[in-house]
Amino acid sequence: MTIHTFVPTTYYTTFGSHAPALRIADGDTVVTTTLDARGYDARLEQVTPPGNPQTGPFYVEGAEPGDAIAIVLEHLAPNRDTGWTSTQVAPNVVVPECVPLLPEREIVTWHLEARAPSPNGGGLGRGKAWLVEPMAGLEGLVLPLAPMLGCLGVAPSGGQAISTATSGPYGGNMDYRGYVAGVTAYFPVFVPGALIHLGDGHAVQGDGEIVGTGIETSFDVRFTVHVLKGKDLWWPRGEDADCIWAVGNARPLDQALQIATTELLRWLGADYGMDLKVASTLLGQVIAYDVGNVYDPAYTMVARVAKSVLPTR
Amino acid sequence: MTIHTFVPTTYYTTFGSHAPALRIADGDTVVTTTLDARGYDARLEQVTPPGNPQTGPFYVEGAEPGDAIAIVLEHLAPNRDTGWTSTQVAPNVVVPECVPLLPEREIVTWHLEARAPSPNGGGLGRGKAWLVEPMAGLEGLVLPLAPMLGCLGVAPSGGQAISTATSGPYGGNMDYRGYVAGVTAYFPVFVPGALIHLGDGHAVQGDGEIVGTGIETSFDVRFTVHVLKGKDLWWPRGEDADCIWAVGNARPLDQALQIATTELLRWLGADYGMDLKVASTLLGQVIAYDVGNVYDPAYTMVARVAKSVLPTR
Amino acid sequence: MTIHTFVPTTYYTTFGSHAPALRIADGDTVVTTTLDARGYDARLEQVTPPGNPQTGPFYVEGAEPGDAIAIVLEHLAPNRDTGWTSTQVAPNVVVPECVPLLPEREIVTWHLEARAPSPNGGGLGRGKAWLVEPMAGLEGLVLPLAPMLGCLGVAPSGGQAISTATSGPYGGNMDYRGYVAGVTAYFPVFVPGALIHLGDGHAVQGDGEIVGTGIETSFDVRFTVHVLKGKDLWWPRGEDADCIWAVGNARPLDQALQIATTELLRWLGADYGMDLKVASTLLGQVIAYDVGNVYDPAYTMVARVAKSVLPTR
Amino acid sequence: MTIHTFVPTTYYTTFGSHAPALRIADGDTVVTTTLDARGYDARLEQVTPPGNPQTGPFYVEGAEPGDAIAIVLEHLAPNRDTGWTSTQVAPNVVVPECVPLLPEREIVTWHLEARAPSPNGGGLGRGKAWLVEPMAGLEGLVLPLAPMLGCLGVAPSGGQAISTATSGPYGGNMDYRGYVAGVTAYFPVFVPGALIHLGDGHAVQGDGEIVGTGIETSFDVRFTVHVLKGKDLWWPRGEDADCIWAVGNARPLDQALQIATTELLRWLGADYGMDLKVASTLLGQVIAYDVGNVYDPAYTMVARVAKSVLPTR
Repeated sequence: MTIHTFVPTTYYTTFGSHAPALRIADGDTVVTTTLDARGYDARLEQVTPPGNPQTGPFYVEGAEPGDAIAIVLEHLAPNRDTGWTSTQVAPNVVVPECVPLLPEREIVTWHLEARAPSPNGGGLGRGKAWLVEPMAGLEGLVLPLAPMLGCLGVAPSGGQAISTATSGPYGGNMDYRGYVAGVTAYFPVFVPGALIHLGDGHAVQGDGEIVGTGIETSFDVRFTVHVLKGKDLWWPRGEDADCIWAVGNARPLDQALQIATTELLRWLGADYGMDLKVASTLLGQVIAYDVGNVYDPAYTMVARVAKSVLPTR
Repeated sequence: MTIHTFVPTTYYTTFGSHAPALRIADGDTVVTTTLDARGYDARLEQVTPPGNPQTGPFYVEGAEPGDAIAIVLEHLAPNRDTGWTSTQVAPNVVVPECVPLLPEREIVTWHLEARAPSPNGGGLGRGKAWLVEPMAGLEGLVLPLAPMLGCLGVAPSGGQAISTATSGPYGGNMDYRGYVAGVTAYFPVFVPGALIHLGDGHAVQGDGEIVGTGIETSFDVRFTVHVLKGKDLWWPRGEDADCIWAVGNARPLDQALQIATTELLRWLGADYGMDLKVASTLLGQVIAYDVGNVYDPAYTMVARVAKSVLPTR
Repeated sequence: MTIHTFVPTTYYTTFGSHAPALRIADGDTVVTTTLDARGYDARLEQVTPPGNPQTGPFYVEGAEPGDAIAIVLEHLAPNRDTGWTSTQVAPNVVVPECVPLLPEREIVTWHLEARAPSPNGGGLGRGKAWLVEPMAGLEGLVLPLAPMLGCLGVAPSGGQAISTATSGPYGGNMDYRGYVAGVTAYFPVFVPGALIHLGDGHAVQGDGEIVGTGIETSFDVRFTVHVLKGKDLWWPRGEDADCIWAVGNARPLDQALQIATTELLRWLGADYGMDLKVASTLLGQVIAYDVGNVYDPAYTMVARVAKSVLPTR
Repeated sequence: MTIHTFVPTTYYTTFGSHAPALRIADGDTVVTTTLDARGYDARLEQVTPPGNPQTGPFYVEGAEPGDAIAIVLEHLAPNRDTGWTSTQVAPNVVVPECVPLLPEREIVTWHLEARAPSPNGGGLGRGKAWLVEPMAGLEGLVLPLAPMLGCLGVAPSGGQAISTATSGPYGGNMDYRGYVAGVTAYFPVFVPGALIHLGDGHAVQGDGEIVGTGIETSFDVRFTVHVLKGKDLWWPRGEDADCIWAVGNARPLDQALQIATTELLRWLGADYGMDLKVASTLLGQVIAYDVGNVYDPAYTMVARVAKSVLPTR
């Protein structure tokens, strides 16, 4: 149950079987940092090229293909007082006829006010964000911070190395607003050690990351890992105090939804003893879908169910 | 500002330019009933064939093509104490390999307990639902009622008559959980009088209507209409106390999302004075997507934004 | 076996259960005309509003829901010497980033040279098309005529009336290059009399109708009908001397392909005695797909197999 | 202009920046072999694990990111007298309701008769294929050989290594029937040397590779490479004596079609001097689409145009 304070020096723009940055044991905690999507750190210095550079990979002793890895996100917070967003809704999220009307893609800066101490102690807590130079029409806009990881996952199967611009069964750039502190994220393990990657922190983000950015900034992160031997996941899963959920990453969204629904049904079968008739009857009236990234080559859909309607597992 | 109590005698299974069932004026209120999806009424008698039979159409005096119609949903509640659902997640919402594992499609009955008087007065209020014959694994399941209209809309353009099994710019079978009491639903007007249809009440429903049903039952309904002259809608919109939203109906979901996003951008432009750069910058960090029907030929996606981040319109 | 010479006076822009324009018997032949997509006739006079106005519907005595109708296309030829096309590839067939680069949509006129008598006798035969005012870069372009019907089908089910801008199980605006003279087109029958509609002739067309038009012109048409009692079609089918094929109309194209493949498998099972293993083994190595319309709300995909690899039916 | 006879000893199941197997010069020719999809060679011995193992990569001197590489496929022929196919149409190419009816996936063996000398000299020429143990219903089936490469491409960008089960801008497992001898295949170059991979030979294949296999076998291959300095390709292209074509790899097929159409428009602009209005006017009436793989995570669509309607480039 060691707590590792890890200062990253190398960053990767693929999820892959890179040389481990740190080896940790089942149950260990890591305190580390992530860069923003363009490779800038807490001091606003660019330390690596852009493209969602990832911290890690972290090799978890004992994690083998066929297992799952649990990553308990304990603390996520911006570690600087600015972030940036784009000003252009992506061409792929409007109807084709609207595309010529879209504005040029510019970058604007947000102030991140986070001086209140975090309720968890350490780092910056939940605070507020506002545009440094408010554009006409958004003068009074102040948004509550909701720090989340845009990228989280493990090395993919078969020796693959896949761009941090997309996602798959291994996780990746899912941009799901649900990856906040307090969540446990689960992933299938495809390679020995799982090889956890994380990065692309967003201080705030709307569903879909439809401008291609959240409020992009560098993060302080603390997480703890657990190896779940023989736990048969096909796709990412997660849970918080209220809900369990499963993730599909694919295009079109219909397929991502099919994957997420199927993985949630698998979970209800394996851990809650529900056959497909029982699970269908229940989910039909209670399932909720959340839209993750709809900007990247693969889109993300999350199928979620409240723990309050589930038996104890 | 007449209040019409309307007892339907004819029902339609298409959204179309049928003979008006009732002519009402701008500002009038209608108190009426809807059948369940198989044509059963409050007494559990089948009064018309199945297939989402619609009450109406209601001809609104003064509504012309190029206008919009606002339908204020004031009261929606089951008017009997049972409803029914299917036990099979639809083949199109799971991965193809999972389809052979799905259970047979059966129908199960839910008890609707709604004895508390409605806060709005009249009819049945928010209550609870449970399975009449609980299947193993769902013995203690009790769900809060959240009555909503599965079908709502107007006659489509060009003399079309389109099955109540699908949806389009005119609304239709959208199965969006947001069509609850307290909401104002907006539709483009395609034909003189708009010709409002409504039906397919669900006492409870999960996102997507993934088993092909909510808890299907007959409803008491009260709504008030307003003609919005020259209001240029392309697709359905809605609002409640907290949010405004726009709807896209299409396949794949990607296209429904494009439509919904575009229509919300149009709204922010027309009524909130936001150009596409301002609206992009805002929505990128605050938009929320809700999944409506993913069972029918056309899927439904809703793009939503909180009023708290918008200027007053 | 009557040959009806039918001069249309009313045209419809929906496929629906309109009053029959002509009642014909099983085996009868119809000689008639169609207008171009904007309602212009052989004399270049506009006789009805635009939007793919259809000739018909033709009521076929004895055709009942559950039967199929065969339409033998015996003669299709332009009946005037000009047609027109658009100059803009549709925004939905290029990547979103390309849409702002597209040209304005203009209409250009083609000369149709068809003076050679048709090999079938009567009307205009296969000839050539060229731009009346060649644009720079297309000066020498001469295309062989390949006259086809953009719209063909029957009245849809359930009292629906569906715009001639789209397609479905009943056929409609499929814009498949395969609907040429010599082909037998099959459709499921949804209403008594089948109610055949036809129109939207193209003197030439590329796959997909990606500019939203073929070379649009008015046609002389001759076809013969046969009622196939109890023939269980779910979607349109067709055949010519060399191939049999099945049609799917849906979005995305993936779904249209699923429908077409399934309908072709059904055909191989019903008429060629092939179970799904045999049909899979064969089609895997010989199936061909053709792309129909990718411009309209529903896209069209055709699954085709050569008769040379099939047993006699 | 060296002719290299290359005997592969290492195979990769990703398209990636692997150590070059051979360095060749611009203009050089390679004579080599490929394994079948399960790693079996000409002697029917398994020499590497399954999963479309690739021969190569071949490092082409002088090829740099921003260039294109031309691969002239001069000879492709099975180098053994058997191949194998699956007997199950893939669940993703039929409608969901049909999936439970599909047969078990079995493997059947085909005899490849290719004793006639190739017209190009050397290796096996065009011949015939038939089932070694004909199933009832396919007793007399004899198919002409049409040898093609299922996999062809270069190393992807950004240090990625992507499974040979899918495809992208770099090519990959496209399963396009057009990759036959006589074709010149073009790819963008993403890494120094381009790093050409090839494999997954099919003696015969239907459109779409809908059973997940062509007639899978090992191949003799001869190809010649040319570096096209500064040739700005975004996606694969190809040409033969009659046509030029561009390839899109994505899901859904709609997106693959958008990519292919856009890349073909780019080609007509760059090499044929056609602006988008001219190219639109032409392609609208002459474009043809071919369906490549619809079995893998990414689908393949090809947009093709005959050279006979193009100016000389």
